[in-house]
Amino acid sequence: MTDTAATGRRGRGGGGAARRAERSAVSFETAKYIERNIPNLDILNEEALQIIEANAETILEEIGVNFPENPAALQRWRDAGAQVDGERVRIPKGLARELCKTAPSEYTQHARNPERNVVVGGRNLVLAPVYGPPFVRDAAGGRRYATLADFQKFVKLAYMSKWLHHSGGTVCEPTDIPVNKRHLDMLYAHMTLSDKPFMGSVTEPSRAQDSVDMCGVLFGEDFVQQNTVMTSLININSPMTFDDVMMGALEVYAKNNQACIISPFIVGGAMAPVSVMGTLTQVLAEVLAGIAYSQLCRKGAPVIFGAFVTSIDMNSGAPTFGTPEAAHITYGAGQLARRMGLPFRSAGSFCGSKLPDAQAAYETSNSLNMGLLSGVNFMLHACGWLEGGLVSSFEKFVMDADQLGTLHHLAKGVQIDENAQAMDAIREVGPGGHYLGCAHTQANFKSAFWKSDLLDYKPFETWQDEGARDTQALATVRVEKMLNDYQQPPIDPAIVEALDAFVAKRKAAEPDSFM
Amino acid sequence: MTDTAATGRRGRGGGGAARRAERSAVSFETAKYIERNIPNLDILNEEALQIIEANAETILEEIGVNFPENPAALQRWRDAGAQVDGERVRIPKGLARELCKTAPSEYTQHARNPERNVVVGGRNLVLAPVYGPPFVRDAAGGRRYATLADFQKFVKLAYMSKWLHHSGGTVCEPTDIPVNKRHLDMLYAHMTLSDKPFMGSVTEPSRAQDSVDMCGVLFGEDFVQQNTVMTSLININSPMTFDDVMMGALEVYAKNNQACIISPFIVGGAMAPVSVMGTLTQVLAEVLAGIAYSQLCRKGAPVIFGAFVTSIDMNSGAPTFGTPEAAHITYGAGQLARRMGLPFRSAGSFCGSKLPDAQAAYETSNSLNMGLLSGVNFMLHACGWLEGGLVSSFEKFVMDADQLGTLHHLAKGVQIDENAQAMDAIREVGPGGHYLGCAHTQANFKSAFWKSDLLDYKPFETWQDEGARDTQALATVRVEKMLNDYQQPPIDPAIVEALDAFVAKRKAAEPDSFM
Repeated sequence: MTDTAATGRRGRGGGGAARRAERSAVSFETAKYIERNIPNLDILNEEALQIIEANAETILEEIGVNFPENPAALQRWRDAGAQVDGERVRIPKGLARELCKTAPSEYTQHARNPERNVVVGGRNLVLAPVYGPPFVRDAAGGRRYATLADFQKFVKLAYMSKWLHHSGGTVCEPTDIPVNKRHLDMLYAHMTLSDKPFMGSVTEPSRAQDSVDMCGVLFGEDFVQQNTVMTSLININSPMTFDDVMMGALEVYAKNNQACIISPFIVGGAMAPVSVMGTLTQVLAEVLAGIAYSQLCRKGAPVIFGAFVTSIDMNSGAPTFGTPEAAHITYGAGQLARRMGLPFRSAGSFCGSKLPDAQAAYETSNSLNMGLLSGVNFMLHACGWLEGGLVSSFEKFVMDADQLGTLHHLAKGVQIDENAQAMDAIREVGPGGHYLGCAHTQANFKSAFWKSDLLDYKPFETWQDEGARDTQALATVRVEKMLNDYQQPPIDPAIVEALDAFVAKRKAAEPDSFM
Repeated sequence: MTDTAATGRRGRGGGGAARRAERSAVSFETAKYIERNIPNLDILNEEALQIIEANAETILEEIGVNFPENPAALQRWRDAGAQVDGERVRIPKGLARELCKTAPSEYTQHARNPERNVVVGGRNLVLAPVYGPPFVRDAAGGRRYATLADFQKFVKLAYMSKWLHHSGGTVCEPTDIPVNKRHLDMLYAHMTLSDKPFMGSVTEPSRAQDSVDMCGVLFGEDFVQQNTVMTSLININSPMTFDDVMMGALEVYAKNNQACIISPFIVGGAMAPVSVMGTLTQVLAEVLAGIAYSQLCRKGAPVIFGAFVTSIDMNSGAPTFGTPEAAHITYGAGQLARRMGLPFRSAGSFCGSKLPDAQAAYETSNSLNMGLLSGVNFMLHACGWLEGGLVSSFEKFVMDADQLGTLHHLAKGVQIDENAQAMDAIREVGPGGHYLGCAHTQANFKSAFWKSDLLDYKPFETWQDEGARDTQALATVRVEKMLNDYQQPPIDPAIVEALDAFVAKRKAAEPDSFM
């Protein structure tokens, strides 16, 4: 049994030069996405689920949702049988759920290296890094605005991280690049510095189109039309508002058969009720409306039932992470997604801490474990998240990425064959003996236990002699080593040239804007 | 719904003077033990469970277990129908399981304050602090041998920790007190500095008898004979060896109707096979033999199915914590315990880290969450464990104790009544609004979310102005504040006097020994 993806044929990103480069390249091992062999934890009973589903339909029919500044969307809804008043769309009971039925229960997102393709849905879990922070932090430089150079470093770290299956999207905001052009540099980095799958831009419909077009250069236009090569993040402006920019990006992606996460963005008590049931009801109503709309744009467009949910400190208004209420909501949302037969996105390396310290790790472990057991299929923010998502942390990136190994091994479940039963070993050793040298141990110890690549297991005296370093200090060293060891995955120079030309042309087409 | 135990009548530890003292005392809130309203995670299927159960019987019948230097135990086994050769006891298939049937499925451990009584078993989870470390650590003093003064501080912290239900036992080893007398000082501290339930001594049968006798002074001798007032830790010397000291202590406790955790102590790959199935099989065989033996000493004696299990770093031989393999074993052991209808002990704030840093917190959260979901009924080491159990950490004690609140709230499950459904709130707020000021939020926000008493939720600038403290630094402050705020729970001075006399008499009865 191996952790790593089977070797497959090389995709279009390869070619003769690439193959030659590959033979001399350092190989960075990437685990196959997680295929769960353990059950999910279902915390809601049938009664609770039916109440939520009935109430969500009531919300859609009686209260409705807003699609502001989007006449085309309103027309689509009208044509589908919804009642439209101004920007408000009221959806008769059952209609949204019916429309959602054309969404696939799983899809393959292709990477330019086919060994890195991921299947999103079913019992799988695909892990992608942190998304969106305007700041970065490391021990040496402290907290500062993120730059494109930081962005590129995170893409390299993600490429080299064994337990990450996906390169993600906005791993940090490259704030030194104009707002209207940074998506080009971000995509270029994902495409050239990594060979893992990635996400497209959603900050303007035109930038979504740029993303599709750049994928056309990378994969070939026909390939893009026939296959899903991006999974992009469409946030719902909760409560129950689908703003025109996000919907515009969704429309571009859906029409091009590219996948979107349709995701309520909820801090409980602010964008949704303070109660778990209330939040789940609103989440379901929003996802039903959003996914139904994706299918109005293109039947069969791949989508994910998303839920970004967290709790709030009612004293300060600060969002709080790794909390039991966020866990309740995530477990419940997973059940609702599975009942719809849709892939589910939630959880991540969430924390509110300012530093990659114990608070960060408690909150993160709570979230990661809950994410695995709630049946998440696509986990954005799986590593590197700090300070409520304001900061991408270099140290925490590699710390969390190491912990993702525990999810892989936990999800494997328990082997029960004769070798695993180890009766011969128990007979061999007997009462009072020890197993360190027995034949069964010798035959099995290499694969028996997950092993951290980062954490300290040394004797106290050795650890002290080496400087009594904490986890952050160990992570600083690991970040530096990984970036020094980085080697670019092979790519056809003609494709790089074409991407260069595309980016240059698009950058020249409009003036810089930092708005 | 309240987190705290209902007020009950005061026990014998009270009395007139105590009641007067109580009226002026600061009240430290203690949560009621956890009553789970969420499911357990069952990772083994019926086939796996049956294989383990069949193989465990084979081990007992074919290989057997050792009861060294304990002729009385061998005679008990002979009388019960086992085959005894030298120290080896071979138990015919089915006999051990049959003997285990007289062990109760749950029991009440009484505290001198009846509000602190705990019910061990069923769907409950009782949390007790770290047990056994010879060292302590805090930020100011670093790592050093533990003293009785340290021990007393930990008892005070446990008493004041809302989410701890139990005062534990050897919260650290008071190494400044002679080995043959320190149990007296430890019990005295638990009895007088706290009013939560506690554990007895197991390091010599005579010290177990001292523990029973001191409880006689505290609770009254009749009360002790009729009720369980201690839960003590009997480790099995895995593989399959029941040493005479531990068995001697077990014999004392069982005869006096006091509870014991019968617990294999296993670092996988050393004291058990490297495989999960193999370890579970050996664990079950050992527990079957140990609990059967407890019932041979006294039918109906309360016992807990224990499992201290962790994995190993096969490179260095160091035990490793918070790992997926330890989780597999714990989940499986929980299933095996429930099939026997016995209370289950496992998990804790396990970590291998030398510092209360991110590693410590990752590993601890992995273990705590797994402990909750594996159906643990009695969690020893629930807070304060550091460096593989060599160190009791003051800071980590309060850090972990705070996290135990998340287990309480997670275990509550989801309310589904009309208030929780929050449809009125969703109608009131509508698309594009916010919930911060709505009636439902106002009515529910105080109890809606678990809130840390320790972690940092402040805005970045405030946090920076206050010294940019990490979790350990916040915990240092909290430890100091708690110890400053400590007030002794009321106790009848006559009982204290009698305990003083008992301790003095026993200490005078033999010379000091540090062996």
